[in-house]
Amino acid sequence: MQAVPDPPAKSSRETTQRPDRETRTSQIYEAAARVFCERGFGQSSMSDVAAAMDMTKAGIYHHIASKDELLFGIMSYGMDLFEERVLDRVEAIRDPVERLRAAIRGHVLLVTRDRPKEVTVILNEPLSLRGEYRDAIDRRKRRYVRFLNQTFRELKRQDLMRDIDPRVATFALLGMINWIYQWYGPGGRLRDTEIAEAYIDLFLGGLLRDAPADPESAS
Amino acid sequence: MQAVPDPPAKSSRETTQRPDRETRTSQIYEAAARVFCERGFGQSSMSDVAAAMDMTKAGIYHHIASKDELLFGIMSYGMDLFEERVLDRVEAIRDPVERLRAAIRGHVLLVTRDRPKEVTVILNEPLSLRGEYRDAIDRRKRRYVRFLNQTFRELKRQDLMRDIDPRVATFALLGMINWIYQWYGPGGRLRDTEIAEAYIDLFLGGLLRDAPADPESAS
Repeated sequence: MQAVPDPPAKSSRETTQRPDRETRTSQIYEAAARVFCERGFGQSSMSDVAAAMDMTKAGIYHHIASKDELLFGIMSYGMDLFEERVLDRVEAIRDPVERLRAAIRGHVLLVTRDRPKEVTVILNEPLSLRGEYRDAIDRRKRRYVRFLNQTFRELKRQDLMRDIDPRVATFALLGMINWIYQWYGPGGRLRDTEIAEAYIDLFLGGLLRDAPADPESAS
Repeated sequence: MQAVPDPPAKSSRETTQRPDRETRTSQIYEAAARVFCERGFGQSSMSDVAAAMDMTKAGIYHHIASKDELLFGIMSYGMDLFEERVLDRVEAIRDPVERLRAAIRGHVLLVTRDRPKEVTVILNEPLSLRGEYRDAIDRRKRRYVRFLNQTFRELKRQDLMRDIDPRVATFALLGMINWIYQWYGPGGRLRDTEIAEAYIDLFLGGLLRDAPADPESAS
């Protein structure tokens, strides 16, 4: 059995929560995400990460204190990207339908295009992050859940949404988008923008022919 | 770094592919799934699994040859349950809308009710299964993908489906359902049957009010 370090003291967690993405640290996150995806988190070592970066192990430890902190750093980096490129930008859109459209489009394009696939995989990997680390990421994920829930409640108040529980709608949408990394590969038959528009159509307009056409073209 | 056994010879794979679910072996699968979910696959040992079963390590090895074979056994067991309780039962339904309805209902109820949650988690855990083992499980998953794809193509031919790519529809649906284990807990506010019917409504009928009501009540 492998010894695993204890969850970190608060101070060390906070130093990784907002990494400067222009620095070596974010390159290490992307490389480590690839290593963890290839070998599994439990089977990977800091030496494997160092080798992938063409750095010494001491060089890696200069940036990151432990393997658990590294995993947490990758997830925080993924959440930073998501919040900056999607959530922070769409939250202020007044019309709830347009807000939802923009959120779906932004989220789909983020996971298909803007971010190394492995960061998404790691962010969705429920088995390895523990304790305080897990709580911190879960808090950030809950902000998005609240955003979707509130948007659906607004649609209900405006009588624009069918009789579907907002929580079910929230998690159905999260599932549709978060699952993309399981099957999507760049260079495949479907382009990322096509998937985004199809998801908007499918989720907002429904599957069967009798549903109304998209009420307006994509903004 | 931890030594991991090589992928198995074909003979040993085939002995676990169709486990007799009434035997000790399926109990070991369910217990091992819980252990792997709690600690992570890489961080778990056969001794941990033995302890969870109140068996000796030799007792476990009497049933299962290696940790990799155990992981494969859990996934095969999950696929057995899915095929026997869902796919084999709905494939013969002639009407594609009813077939789809029955597949969604059966799949949602399987992951919320019939199967220990941990088996679902493990089945969706993309990081740890390797080589031949992974290929064998992927082949079985592809049967379901083909089933959904063909059903959507049939709906298109009958002009019942909106202009959405069948592949996108397939993976959107798989995402909605496969994600459930991330948020659903028995005893929560939503009952399993409510989730199943809401998923059918949302996926088939669409989100916005203008979409048609469910064309017939649940069969």
